[in-house]
Amino acid sequence: MPANDLLSYSEACAFVARRAERLARAKPAAERVRLTAAAGRVLAETLRASSDQPPFARSTRDGYACRAAEISTHGPLAVAGATRAGDAPSGPLACGVVWEIMTGAPVPRGADAVVMIEHVESAGAAAKPTIRLLPPRTIEPGENIVARGAQARKGDALLPAGTLIGAAQIALAASCGATQLTVYARPRVAILSTGDELVPIAAKPKPGQIRNSSSAMLAAMVSAAGGEPWILPIARDTLKSLDAALARAAAADLLLITGGVSAGKFDLVEPALARLGARFHFTGVRIQPGKPLVFGELPRRRDGPTIDLATNDCAGAPSFPAFFAGKGGKKMSLSYCRIDSSVQRQNGKKCSFLGLPGNPVSSAVTFLLFAAPILAALAGRLHRGPRFALARLTEDVKTKPGLTRFLPAACTFAAPVPEVACVSWQGSGDLAAMALANCYLVVPEDSDRLKAGATVRILLP
Amino acid sequence: MPANDLLSYSEACAFVARRAERLARAKPAAERVRLTAAAGRVLAETLRASSDQPPFARSTRDGYACRAAEISTHGPLAVAGATRAGDAPSGPLACGVVWEIMTGAPVPRGADAVVMIEHVESAGAAAKPTIRLLPPRTIEPGENIVARGAQARKGDALLPAGTLIGAAQIALAASCGATQLTVYARPRVAILSTGDELVPIAAKPKPGQIRNSSSAMLAAMVSAAGGEPWILPIARDTLKSLDAALARAAAADLLLITGGVSAGKFDLVEPALARLGARFHFTGVRIQPGKPLVFGELPRRRDGPTIDLATNDCAGAPSFPAFFAGKGGKKMSLSYCRIDSSVQRQNGKKCSFLGLPGNPVSSAVTFLLFAAPILAALAGRLHRGPRFALARLTEDVKTKPGLTRFLPAACTFAAPVPEVACVSWQGSGDLAAMALANCYLVVPEDSDRLKAGATVRILLP
Repeated sequence: MPANDLLSYSEACAFVARRAERLARAKPAAERVRLTAAAGRVLAETLRASSDQPPFARSTRDGYACRAAEISTHGPLAVAGATRAGDAPSGPLACGVVWEIMTGAPVPRGADAVVMIEHVESAGAAAKPTIRLLPPRTIEPGENIVARGAQARKGDALLPAGTLIGAAQIALAASCGATQLTVYARPRVAILSTGDELVPIAAKPKPGQIRNSSSAMLAAMVSAAGGEPWILPIARDTLKSLDAALARAAAADLLLITGGVSAGKFDLVEPALARLGARFHFTGVRIQPGKPLVFGELPRRRDGPTIDLATNDCAGAPSFPAFFAGKGGKKMSLSYCRIDSSVQRQNGKKCSFLGLPGNPVSSAVTFLLFAAPILAALAGRLHRGPRFALARLTEDVKTKPGLTRFLPAACTFAAPVPEVACVSWQGSGDLAAMALANCYLVVPEDSDRLKAGATVRILLP
Repeated sequence: MPANDLLSYSEACAFVARRAERLARAKPAAERVRLTAAAGRVLAETLRASSDQPPFARSTRDGYACRAAEISTHGPLAVAGATRAGDAPSGPLACGVVWEIMTGAPVPRGADAVVMIEHVESAGAAAKPTIRLLPPRTIEPGENIVARGAQARKGDALLPAGTLIGAAQIALAASCGATQLTVYARPRVAILSTGDELVPIAAKPKPGQIRNSSSAMLAAMVSAAGGEPWILPIARDTLKSLDAALARAAAADLLLITGGVSAGKFDLVEPALARLGARFHFTGVRIQPGKPLVFGELPRRRDGPTIDLATNDCAGAPSFPAFFAGKGGKKMSLSYCRIDSSVQRQNGKKCSFLGLPGNPVSSAVTFLLFAAPILAALAGRLHRGPRFALARLTEDVKTKPGLTRFLPAACTFAAPVPEVACVSWQGSGDLAAMALANCYLVVPEDSDRLKAGATVRILLP
């Protein structure tokens, strides 16, 4: 296919974003998880404030609760009492007095400000202490107080369904008394590596063979992106092997296929997908690496072999039996890890698939750009795009225009200025170079050169 | 303590980096994990190439292996045979012929280049096919071939010990035949929240009380940073409660304490640490939020209560019994999650501690800036600093100079330009605002204003 028949990178992104939008409408099944196991999951309910936040007018300083108008006269005021963090609110505050208060403690009724302990002068007898605000400092009502409900009112929506749960969201849920959260089930992602040259990791490759590194890599990427990876045995470059593997894989929510999608005589994946009734959205993108990318959807097999999720469990520990067992394409039983058999099948009648190029750098880049957004949609997430940031380039980069490029790069991610440079690599099969990179430098399609010192865009892993 | 007695942000960073460097010299214990469970762990051995990579001269294209000088004459050359991916290498290639080859297949001996199938014209009878390179195109030796060993030679060091393992490193290890990896044991991080105002998550706060959100938040941050979180019961603002809690916590590799480190009358943490023989490195940094930060180290308790790691296991599932049980400061038994009792105690005679400010935004920021590098050192990682990137600011930000500020912010992380803006917040207790942020905007100490449109630095979570 000539290059100008391929989608541009931005066309492909926009298309994938629209498909993701549609896929996200079919909400995944929900399940309850402990708050402490919720990191990386996606909220399936609106988190609402269980009370006003803060639940009382709260001092943000150690000092004295007071009336701003009174204390700003700089006259001495008697210290009428003290409130520690954890005490019930005191008050009402009488006229002409202040109240000692600790950070986090409730401000007495009647007080409208807190003066910091560093800003006052103490006097008076120990039994009858007084303080005065040191001139010329004055204070305004509201200073050093967070009013009751200033952050949220009881019942307010704090987080919408679709929010990715991290440490901050866990803290917020904890503050609302949630020891469990309702989250979306993880989408199941089948991973199928194809190619007669591939042998399992534990096997010793014969001349002309290489180990299957892509399946383990993609499984780690799927897990990190919130999916449940299912690793299928390597499929061979035969009609029979591919047909059998794809029929089983179509039970997943998303199918990632590596290899077999270029223009070679034995690139049989597209015909095999077509035989299963695939609808192809696109079959190539003007990017490097990753040009021969295929995106589409398969009907779920209703008459095909049934996968018994309840009995085919790998007993807790992450493991990839068929993947390691070296059975190759011969034994076609589905293997996977960390299956929760209580979770119902998701997202209706279609299985989205991406045919990723066989080289691992190409697989990794196309996963981040296109598979991750689809996976995020299937996981019910609101925010789904690939993640980019900026950094300063330290060395010139020369390329040919015509393709948007994503070059393995190492960023310092350091202060004062994060700096990035390309990693020297021998093409998209160069695993050693990819393992030394921590991001990908984006070279726009119309660019033939990025200059040292420029602020450039990087794709975050 | 007046502000100019505090360390500047960069002084504190440099100090923590030097301590981390020293801590990293005491290597943690090592353990073997399955390759598929290695994501997020730290490599404890040098990963070496098990063979030349690639193990054979490999075609990067579908096309014809040839001699560059012969084919560049544009004369027709006979197709003498074909090699598919997975086939053993052929050859030697006779003079005046080419050899059909697929992407990933071994190049026949004698060939020095591969011409792409798109660049040739076929002719000849089906039984005696010939091809010629379409003029004016010519080809150089080496084109579309990755030479044997071009990426690595057998025995080459591919990754040093101390490398964080992610998807790319898993792929590289898989290509070397590693089904298991030797990784460092995760450092144990005790988390102790202090304060009479705190109640457990499941409890209903009385007036003046709030739920302990920090422990769950920090546990999630510790897990994400590669540590084993141990959540201790809330400690009360009494000498007895703090002394008991700290004595037990000093069995950890790192102790994170929240609250009790400001200038208030009931801020008893520093005196309690001093009673245990703490050495204080610093007790404040000119940052906002997070100024009253305390960093130091405790001697390990040899005569103190022993923690039986082997029997105190929480039986697999992540759980924080004492944390949820609501026993408060009364029951002081250590509780933790996901302990692997086979792992030996690490890193010698000292327990590093960080006293983080009690407000959750302050705790989160100081964790990222200071606790994460110490944790990374204790985990044996080579790269340890907090992670920064650049983005474009969309709204003016005004502050007062004198403190380096880390303001909760939302970044689009999107193409073409990642844009960031501060999240509206009510101070460092505002969990709701923090949960809507996905990074922190860095405002340098000498800056009073960042302008919309500027390229600014963000702290990544």
